[in-house]
Amino acid sequence: MVARHTFEEQLDSLHRKLLSMGSLVEEAIHKSIKSLVERNLQLADEVIKSDGVINSLEAEIESGCFQLIALQQPVGGDLRRLGTMLKLVTDLERMGDHAVAIAKTTRRLMNEQYVKPLIDIPLMADHVKAMVRDSLNAYIIRDTEAAAEIALRDDVVDKLFSTIFRDLIEVMSNKPQAINQGTHLLLVAQYLERIADHVTNICEWIVYMKTGQMTDLNK
Amino acid sequence: MVARHTFEEQLDSLHRKLLSMGSLVEEAIHKSIKSLVERNLQLADEVIKSDGVINSLEAEIESGCFQLIALQQPVGGDLRRLGTMLKLVTDLERMGDHAVAIAKTTRRLMNEQYVKPLIDIPLMADHVKAMVRDSLNAYIIRDTEAAAEIALRDDVVDKLFSTIFRDLIEVMSNKPQAINQGTHLLLVAQYLERIADHVTNICEWIVYMKTGQMTDLNK
Repeated sequence: MVARHTFEEQLDSLHRKLLSMGSLVEEAIHKSIKSLVERNLQLADEVIKSDGVINSLEAEIESGCFQLIALQQPVGGDLRRLGTMLKLVTDLERMGDHAVAIAKTTRRLMNEQYVKPLIDIPLMADHVKAMVRDSLNAYIIRDTEAAAEIALRDDVVDKLFSTIFRDLIEVMSNKPQAINQGTHLLLVAQYLERIADHVTNICEWIVYMKTGQMTDLNK
Repeated sequence: MVARHTFEEQLDSLHRKLLSMGSLVEEAIHKSIKSLVERNLQLADEVIKSDGVINSLEAEIESGCFQLIALQQPVGGDLRRLGTMLKLVTDLERMGDHAVAIAKTTRRLMNEQYVKPLIDIPLMADHVKAMVRDSLNAYIIRDTEAAAEIALRDDVVDKLFSTIFRDLIEVMSNKPQAINQGTHLLLVAQYLERIADHVTNICEWIVYMKTGQMTDLNK
């Protein structure tokens, strides 16, 4: 067994890596939507290239958690913290993947004019980005009430997704030349919805970390 | 610490729950696609209702893994097995969610005739179902070579997704009345693609479980 202060140091180190990973994912989501709205190929490419760093952090944190569990044999709250980190990095990594998918859509739509300006997708993205940011803050301060509140915002995001879906169908029905971009933008909206789902998972794990209870925050 | 045979019994019990969960997820995917092709509302409802069991199993297995880690303080291969289970149940639960999403699409499209019979989507589903089944078998027998091979099949699935995407765009361009079903079927194809991605994750964890190495099998 390792001395308590060393355990705390190592746990802290993993914690900081997780927060770095969270920041990178927030940035990737932000840049991917910005690249889509502004038709910015360079920004899209940055998102795609940076995904490797996010994936490496996931592997490092997972490896670190397993090592710490093996060496320190934590129980109770300490074990829950490590278990929560193991779960959170999975959600964060998937969110990074969705940002990459959005950036790839930017690339695929470069040769087309948008039939109408993108309004609802960036709006949906703003809600989702706020959920991501707030969930990471709730994780840092272990705020279970905030976690529960953030998870409820998934409803707003789901409604925006439905609205965007309906609007895209209407646009495509009226303008067949918009079908290619319409379908791609529908997938973007779905990636955003998926990111919000992952935030809900993160919120459930924040509650677990503090209370030991696994709850279903809004299914 | 708990006697070795009791640890093995408890590990076995978790293992069997994970395999049950795997079977339920395979069944959910199968039924969800069947419900879509056959326009079978009852089957779709069964998938939606059964998701609760899948989610409960995830919670039980996670809880069991954390308890076993706390009580038994495993190291090495034993710890990797538990860590792998913790990761696998997340992927399986998400796959179950995607099956539910496909079943909900069945419900949403009940009032429309399919503009053309569904051929490529069930074909893509067959590939994905085989990947799911084979990955669970590879997990049982800890076959890392099989795991690597299964992960490579993700390429075939990605190509099928692209084909379906292009075909749906063409159909929708020619028949505006098909836009609603076309967009929904596109999302179904994406859910299938996501399920295949999760299988790739499972394969990477099978390799980790045996070797202690975290590999990127085909990103």
